Amino acid sequence: MTDTPEAFDAVEVIATKRDGGRLSDPQIDWVVDAYTRGVVADEQMSALAMAILLNGMERPEIARWTAAMIASGERMDFSSLSRPTADKHSTGGVGDKITLPLAPLVAACGVAVPQLSGRGLGHTGGTLDKLEAIPGWRAELSNAEILAQLEDVGAVICAAGKGLAPADKKLYALRDVTGTVEAIPLIASSIMSKKIAEGTGTLVLDVKVGSGAFMKDLEQATELAETMVALGTDAGVRTVALLTDMSVPLGLTAGNAVEVAESVEVLAGGGPRDVVELTIALAREMVAAAGRDDVDPADALADGRAMDFWRRMISAQGGDPDAPLPTPRETQVVTAPTTGVLTGLDALGVGVAAWRLGAGRSRPGEQVQAAAGVVLHATVGDRVVEGQPLLTLQTDTPERFARAEQALEGAITVGPDGQEPSARQVVLQRIDR
Amino acid sequence: MTDTPEAFDAVEVIATKRDGGRLSDPQIDWVVDAYTRGVVADEQMSALAMAILLNGMERPEIARWTAAMIASGERMDFSSLSRPTADKHSTGGVGDKITLPLAPLVAACGVAVPQLSGRGLGHTGGTLDKLEAIPGWRAELSNAEILAQLEDVGAVICAAGKGLAPADKKLYALRDVTGTVEAIPLIASSIMSKKIAEGTGTLVLDVKVGSGAFMKDLEQATELAETMVALGTDAGVRTVALLTDMSVPLGLTAGNAVEVAESVEVLAGGGPRDVVELTIALAREMVAAAGRDDVDPADALADGRAMDFWRRMISAQGGDPDAPLPTPRETQVVTAPTTGVLTGLDALGVGVAAWRLGAGRSRPGEQVQAAAGVVLHATVGDRVVEGQPLLTLQTDTPERFARAEQALEGAITVGPDGQEPSARQVVLQRIDR
Repeated sequence: MTDTPEAFDAVEVIATKRDGGRLSDPQIDWVVDAYTRGVVADEQMSALAMAILLNGMERPEIARWTAAMIASGERMDFSSLSRPTADKHSTGGVGDKITLPLAPLVAACGVAVPQLSGRGLGHTGGTLDKLEAIPGWRAELSNAEILAQLEDVGAVICAAGKGLAPADKKLYALRDVTGTVEAIPLIASSIMSKKIAEGTGTLVLDVKVGSGAFMKDLEQATELAETMVALGTDAGVRTVALLTDMSVPLGLTAGNAVEVAESVEVLAGGGPRDVVELTIALAREMVAAAGRDDVDPADALADGRAMDFWRRMISAQGGDPDAPLPTPRETQVVTAPTTGVLTGLDALGVGVAAWRLGAGRSRPGEQVQAAAGVVLHATVGDRVVEGQPLLTLQTDTPERFARAEQALEGAITVGPDGQEPSARQVVLQRIDR
Repeated sequence: MTDTPEAFDAVEVIATKRDGGRLSDPQIDWVVDAYTRGVVADEQMSALAMAILLNGMERPEIARWTAAMIASGERMDFSSLSRPTADKHSTGGVGDKITLPLAPLVAACGVAVPQLSGRGLGHTGGTLDKLEAIPGWRAELSNAEILAQLEDVGAVICAAGKGLAPADKKLYALRDVTGTVEAIPLIASSIMSKKIAEGTGTLVLDVKVGSGAFMKDLEQATELAETMVALGTDAGVRTVALLTDMSVPLGLTAGNAVEVAESVEVLAGGGPRDVVELTIALAREMVAAAGRDDVDPADALADGRAMDFWRRMISAQGGDPDAPLPTPRETQVVTAPTTGVLTGLDALGVGVAAWRLGAGRSRPGEQVQAAAGVVLHATVGDRVVEGQPLLTLQTDTPERFARAEQALEGAITVGPDGQEPSARQVVLQRIDR
């Protein structure tokens, strides 16, 4: 069929992992490359992915798999910049707008932030989708534009180029439709291949734990975090992970424009406590890992420097930081069912509601609504009175309200007075090597 | 996308089995049907197949899966015949030409044999490929021709129509390239869906065990046999299984024309002991299961009736039973490495050698060579003298000799005199319900 014979047979590679064996380095190099070239077919890779999910991979296998995915494409190089670089990756959560205030805050501390992001799929939303709610802002930059903006402004949030880890892009889309997303070796190598290829000097991982996150329990999240920290460190990237709570939404908004507005509040010195706390915690890790432990991000947030960097970052990509954000055509209020203490506000329920209102997409390429989302008027621990507004649903297409409300069934719990839950801890654990 | 929404989501079905759950009847019905319609994609079905392979299926799931594959196509009906019907299925072995003498032998006992076969893929060869070595013989018959020949002659060996269990055809081809062949639930449902759809009244399964077979050990083979006997019995087909030895090749030939010649020897009252023994054992099961325990197939073989039925069966499909069989362009002799007792003649090695000589195919649709194969001049337990011919390799394309010889490395073992292996038992176990 081809001029040069293939080094391996796909079925033999699949059978090795199926039978509980360890893939050799040449097997991994070949199968990732051959999949990228289309010689290993989708149906073969999905069978291999399922075997990896069920039989696992050892650390050296994961490291080699990651390296093979990096080798499938180009690598960026920020070593010519006058500043150190630091990047953050979140495994995805509901209301997770942290990147928006974080990137300008870290830039304000003298550390360049090349934040190459993806689009949202499913209930967790995407950073680019959120920023596109800002009139004029564009996500697509060339590599030269990224470098220039990092030098001039110090922060870029933009779409990851198609040239980085193309094997991962192909595999990620495949896993999404074949029930093979939930494999820690594949999650870790997917994230880390992109981040290492992107060329950042340091990386802080925000690994979410809880109902609204991908990892529902601390044990799994710890394994994922440890795997990624090891992968990054071994590849020469200073890598630290924070395990953070995702049992309730972050802040009081989940959606696109609503999350931009909340981020701007934080940059203006206000905003919900948990968003502020997590933004500063991650910023401190990034700044310290980049060697700037002389600067405290809390100061740069308090004195308005972070807001200055935000405005420059948005303007540099065509956005108008002063333009009014889109507002929804329709809103609907959900009220408290009884009087008492708000004891639960399930992150997954809120995330799915925002998604169904139009904030997220079900298929790659689908349009999202800038104004769609959920705004919370109370948070866990607050005293509420029967009939008071608890949250507002926003959408341009009111036929979506019914299914959004369904997603919220059982998500809101109100307990009797005196049953206040203990104060929420945002950062649960820190993992480095 | 479609007018009627789908009853299930493929990823949810995959996740159920991935997470160790049991598929519901509606899930199974949907996924098999949706795969046949192309709504469930190959890469989704292969992930599901791998999850089934690794996490297993319970008996009721396998039964439902089998029923869903039968429901994907047409069913044949032999109830209008004046005779009872009995069919045999072998899980595939090296030198397994048993169908050739068996079908006319059983027909000679008054039981009609509708033997709908496939083509060989890999080292075990295919019944149709063997018969096509006979000049003029054709494998493709219409359903009407099959019925007429069963009434007139009593035996048909022909290609299974495309209308039977199309879901299985599609899934079988997928499993072949995705390392998911070795799943007992999928093997059992694949075989039994075709055999039940084919409409036979009784079925005898020849489940091979040993190096040249699909099932390498007795435990696996027993599980497969028990699963298939249960599936057949529950579907109203009287089903019996024999577990038979496949550690050495059956008889003294592996290939196409060479196996036809050996079958004719058996029908003429000669032939290797193991082939005769297994043919009679299977014939007795088929004849008894079909209610004709008044007849002994050994008599019908001895008195030449089976040979008469063979000649009529071959002629009815355009073949000339008296025509000379094709001979190979080139042969090469492999000799005994030392003097002693032949202690091992590995079935897999011989099977792969025959395959590489051109008797089998590596891809569906590939041409096979009628004259290619291996002829054995000694069998396990025989005394051999260094340099005496042990086997002859036959092919039309002599560049194939080298790789065939490679396949035989380590396959032939000669021990010192006095180390004669114990007599080989062909039928290891019988399983019914």
